[in-house]
Amino acid sequence: VGIARRQQSVDQARALELIDDGTMDLQEGLREADIVVLATPVRVIIRQLREVAALMAAGSMLMDLGSTKTEIVQEMALLPDHVHPLGGHPMCGKEVAGLEAANPAIYHDRTFILTPLERTSVESLELGKALARAIGSRPLVLDARRQDYLVGTLSHLPYMIACALVATADATTSADSAAWDIVAGGFRDTSRVAGSDVTMMMDILWTNRAEVLGAVEAYQQQLSELGRLLSSNDEAAMRRELSRIQAERIRMFP
Amino acid sequence: VGIARRQQSVDQARALELIDDGTMDLQEGLREADIVVLATPVRVIIRQLREVAALMAAGSMLMDLGSTKTEIVQEMALLPDHVHPLGGHPMCGKEVAGLEAANPAIYHDRTFILTPLERTSVESLELGKALARAIGSRPLVLDARRQDYLVGTLSHLPYMIACALVATADATTSADSAAWDIVAGGFRDTSRVAGSDVTMMMDILWTNRAEVLGAVEAYQQQLSELGRLLSSNDEAAMRRELSRIQAERIRMFP
Repeated sequence: VGIARRQQSVDQARALELIDDGTMDLQEGLREADIVVLATPVRVIIRQLREVAALMAAGSMLMDLGSTKTEIVQEMALLPDHVHPLGGHPMCGKEVAGLEAANPAIYHDRTFILTPLERTSVESLELGKALARAIGSRPLVLDARRQDYLVGTLSHLPYMIACALVATADATTSADSAAWDIVAGGFRDTSRVAGSDVTMMMDILWTNRAEVLGAVEAYQQQLSELGRLLSSNDEAAMRRELSRIQAERIRMFP
Repeated sequence: VGIARRQQSVDQARALELIDDGTMDLQEGLREADIVVLATPVRVIIRQLREVAALMAAGSMLMDLGSTKTEIVQEMALLPDHVHPLGGHPMCGKEVAGLEAANPAIYHDRTFILTPLERTSVESLELGKALARAIGSRPLVLDARRQDYLVGTLSHLPYMIACALVATADATTSADSAAWDIVAGGFRDTSRVAGSDVTMMMDILWTNRAEVLGAVEAYQQQLSELGRLLSSNDEAAMRRELSRIQAERIRMFP
């Protein structure tokens, strides 16, 4: 059962056979649900948790798919006892939003992070794992703070990096019409996530600010060091560093 | 006719039908060539230009495929009069080296930069354009310095960025075993070019140092500004900047 704010979304989801049934009425949609999965930007999840929980049946489970988990899990801890909360974050996504872009295959072979609360029962966690496996993902149980630290570097930092690259080209080379013919594969890949949905990313960044800012700072140091090596005449040191990085990249993605 | 340093490469290229004939003997390979195309790392091209030109027939054309052009073109200007030099740089590439990875399709629909010298005749430039078109590319004639400035930001900067990202993850999150399960699509794309051949990249960076260092500096300023917006409480300003960047990314890659 899909719940959306607009009738058009409900109709489209039904037409695309993404849902069996749909409604704009929160109460109606939640009444008989055993599992409720919130899939909106992070701060919308945080705002709606209490209202949603109040409408849920006793013993039902409340999950979310938000990319940052500390603030969500903190808010989940305050929910009434009759619901079982569990944080979730599938490590996949697209730069295209909207129902037309929906594709169940994006979950296949991806890690699905689960961040249980102290109050999360073993049963609820197992249900979350089963749900992740049912869509082809590999469940990975993590503490919410640890997940936010890791994705701060592995997911949110790449977004900041990609945005700064596009901003740099815009500020410098884009004035040259030839730049548009030159922009090639390397730039395309490195900048891809800069096309991500801004509202989604704003919520992610603002609910993980400390970790993202720490990652940006660590990153700037690494880039400065590469710049320092390039401006030096120590080719051997630069070659060692680039070789080490190349080997690490291959180790990450064999 | 392919010329390589090792017999194994010649045999392999022949077996893969990448060449009609091959040799390790420079003189033999060059004797009857109308067009000679150097396709090695940039500083090997620079080192070999004079030796190659001396063995070429009168009136034949000497091209290269190096990613930086200013130093190559400077060296080409000093070649004997009997050869016609022309700088070339196809905007495509792969993170996998070796003959097994050879694929003619990588040139399709890509820009092929040509950097003529003062001495390059109209005839030679037209021949270079025809060659680019014959492999499915779009020729683009540029001054060597202008090309080096543009690719400094659009191609070499993405490499530096990707390397710094891998180095950051290596220095911080990689100590956590969960990081390896989390590393997802965004990180993979943003870091892809960090897997590039180090010898090739060393030559590119060292023959375009001023432009790359300038691009890194401009980039650091853009990233610092994004960090400043994130650490401020001015969400509206950050949203405007990210929206502007998103629109620019979509304009670059519609």
